[in-house]
Amino acid sequence: MQTDHLSAKFAALADPTRRAILARLALGETSVTELAEPFKMSMPAVSKHLRVLERAGLIARGREAQWRPARIEPEALQEVDRWLEEYRRLWNARLDRLEDYLNELQAAEQPKPARKPVAKKAGAKRGRKS
Amino acid sequence: MQTDHLSAKFAALADPTRRAILARLALGETSVTELAEPFKMSMPAVSKHLRVLERAGLIARGREAQWRPARIEPEALQEVDRWLEEYRRLWNARLDRLEDYLNELQAAEQPKPARKPVAKKAGAKRGRKS
Repeated sequence: MQTDHLSAKFAALADPTRRAILARLALGETSVTELAEPFKMSMPAVSKHLRVLERAGLIARGREAQWRPARIEPEALQEVDRWLEEYRRLWNARLDRLEDYLNELQAAEQPKPARKPVAKKAGAKRGRKS
Repeated sequence: MQTDHLSAKFAALADPTRRAILARLALGETSVTELAEPFKMSMPAVSKHLRVLERAGLIARGREAQWRPARIEPEALQEVDRWLEEYRRLWNARLDRLEDYLNELQAAEQPKPARKPVAKKAGAKRGRKS
């Protein structure tokens, strides 16, 4: 079955061990032997996870037959980031509406002096991205 | 098999039909019948995808037995966004190094007048998030 690139990435990330391997590789490239140790996994098991990550484009491997160091390809995650962009807008819009609503509630609670909305530009507070 | 929340989300997103359903729900809540039409899928097939999305927390469904409208829960994707954050830093750092290198190359090409690096704050150009 052929899967599209983005699906392959999401599928590769849908495993805690593979995400842990990525986190380890974010610190620097390493060999399968070194990777297998902290995970208490057999080398074939680690190799299998690396193949999934490699096929998804999330890591690349060296050519040396014996010591094929794996390194992360973080740029491959930009596709996931771009996919998220639309939904990021959606959740920010929702949070804005919630904020407006809370401001209205607060304003209604203190009838005088004239409605003074609570600090409005709170986008930064939740680390808005766009 | 028990899967952690983040893995369940990635697994749910690893399917183009489920991502298309999410994109449709981003426009507003809708019934299974309405969802099934554009996708040319049977209702049971759509229901199955909705169950995967629901279990991952990416959508919620109404209580009405007949018409159980599905709606997106975009906030659930913030967990994916937070996971990406570390790697976003990594790819930005890489792009910065690449930029520095290109600047050095350019500077080397035009020996005079004294090195004038190309616009340095190019973070915005690639939509840097942090």
